[in-house]
Amino acid sequence: MEQDKKRTVFRYSNGYLSKKEDQIVVEHPVTIKINDQEFATIVCSPEYIEDMAVGFLASEGVIPKYEDIKDISLQEELGIVHIKTDKMYPFYEKLLNKRYITSCCGMSRQGFVFANDALTVKRMTGTHVTLTPEDCFFLMEQMDQSADMFHKTGGVHNAALCDPTGIVLSRMDIGRHNALDKIYGHCLRNTISVKDKIIVFSGRISSEILLKVAKIGCEIVLSKSAPTELALTLAEELGITTVGFIRQNSFNLYTHPDRIIIEENNNIFQH
Amino acid sequence: MEQDKKRTVFRYSNGYLSKKEDQIVVEHPVTIKINDQEFATIVCSPEYIEDMAVGFLASEGVIPKYEDIKDISLQEELGIVHIKTDKMYPFYEKLLNKRYITSCCGMSRQGFVFANDALTVKRMTGTHVTLTPEDCFFLMEQMDQSADMFHKTGGVHNAALCDPTGIVLSRMDIGRHNALDKIYGHCLRNTISVKDKIIVFSGRISSEILLKVAKIGCEIVLSKSAPTELALTLAEELGITTVGFIRQNSFNLYTHPDRIIIEENNNIFQH
Repeated sequence: MEQDKKRTVFRYSNGYLSKKEDQIVVEHPVTIKINDQEFATIVCSPEYIEDMAVGFLASEGVIPKYEDIKDISLQEELGIVHIKTDKMYPFYEKLLNKRYITSCCGMSRQGFVFANDALTVKRMTGTHVTLTPEDCFFLMEQMDQSADMFHKTGGVHNAALCDPTGIVLSRMDIGRHNALDKIYGHCLRNTISVKDKIIVFSGRISSEILLKVAKIGCEIVLSKSAPTELALTLAEELGITTVGFIRQNSFNLYTHPDRIIIEENNNIFQH
Repeated sequence: MEQDKKRTVFRYSNGYLSKKEDQIVVEHPVTIKINDQEFATIVCSPEYIEDMAVGFLASEGVIPKYEDIKDISLQEELGIVHIKTDKMYPFYEKLLNKRYITSCCGMSRQGFVFANDALTVKRMTGTHVTLTPEDCFFLMEQMDQSADMFHKTGGVHNAALCDPTGIVLSRMDIGRHNALDKIYGHCLRNTISVKDKIIVFSGRISSEILLKVAKIGCEIVLSKSAPTELALTLAEELGITTVGFIRQNSFNLYTHPDRIIIEENNNIFQH
């Protein structure tokens, strides 16, 4: 399976928009089944999947020794690793019988892999906010300036809720999604409307981050980093505009480009 | 509560070792209790914790509406957020009664917050491998060169198992810990000894990554990025040497420095 996929994106650079082929990293959901029962779902890069399953089970202490694994087999297209064992720690065996793990956790809660996501994700319809390229650069610069913790310790993610004129709320956290949960919780507790706001995020737009944006209910997400392929697939479906790799005079526009307003003369597709 | 803590670290720069004060980002485990029962444990930066709990419960769909939360209170020192509600989605209510979530998942499995970590973490005793500063720079450079996927798409983490002469095994993944699980699984399946090896990691050394290194059973971890305070506390306890911010001619040495061999004349503490 491929580690990344080619995709046509809109490249904005020094005032002009053009199309280019870009390579986007793949997120692949893999379900580990132990003795035919679902145990955990992990979102990963699609290679060395059996090794990952063994490493995961060993480091989590699910199976006492590697020798206790009687068989490992991979159904790559279905994203399932089958593990056969007759020895598991009793704590996990109980969980397995209840079939709770898959639906409650997995190592990450990405994609529509987990039942709870389908419950809370909102699909964006219509356009309640638009940005110019200058707005994108300005908001990213604002977030950088507010991110003083990052400059001190080099160890946190930053997220900001913005409108086109600037930052409404900015939060930082060592956990990728915690900063977004802090923003969402503040909005709920203070009845701040979100549908005309923008999320600006310091890190990569993974499927998990994209879903969090959809749960909060924002139509546009801006980032300095790369999105993943699964995040873009979800963004297409959910009606979210994703802008990545925002630098001084350039960015990539991946999905639902209509909310980014480019001067007609500068959009080479208009000619 | 403070977002970062001061800590004395050893700074190696252009051949010389010195002490300096550094600011290290804090990871804070927070347990959400719903109606006095443990629901989930999240490792986060210690601010806006009630907002985070509300945002988390809302985005996971645990409680139907914000108005269904009757009361929120924080015991900051204990790291507990108390949520009172008389409405939960039935799926989660069942989980709550079984008290499974805390011990099986949480958003992250960090610190000794989760029972399974205590089962599988190894404490390093003795010294089975040492490195010179030149080895550190060389191994980081080797890993950078092997990380071609990162250069293509800008969206993955890289990890390598090394000995002092070079890379034994290198893996990349979009998930921070997956790359390490792939290395661990490969070693188990091919009975490769790990205790005389080094882990080189592209990203931040969080408590989660440090614990994974301890579970694999390596004594030294090298990174280009910052460690967290909790990771360093665990590294001290578990006997692991952590080296961070490895750049062209400099790095920070945080814990168990004895495994990094600095020429006596260049160690200013010897004079």
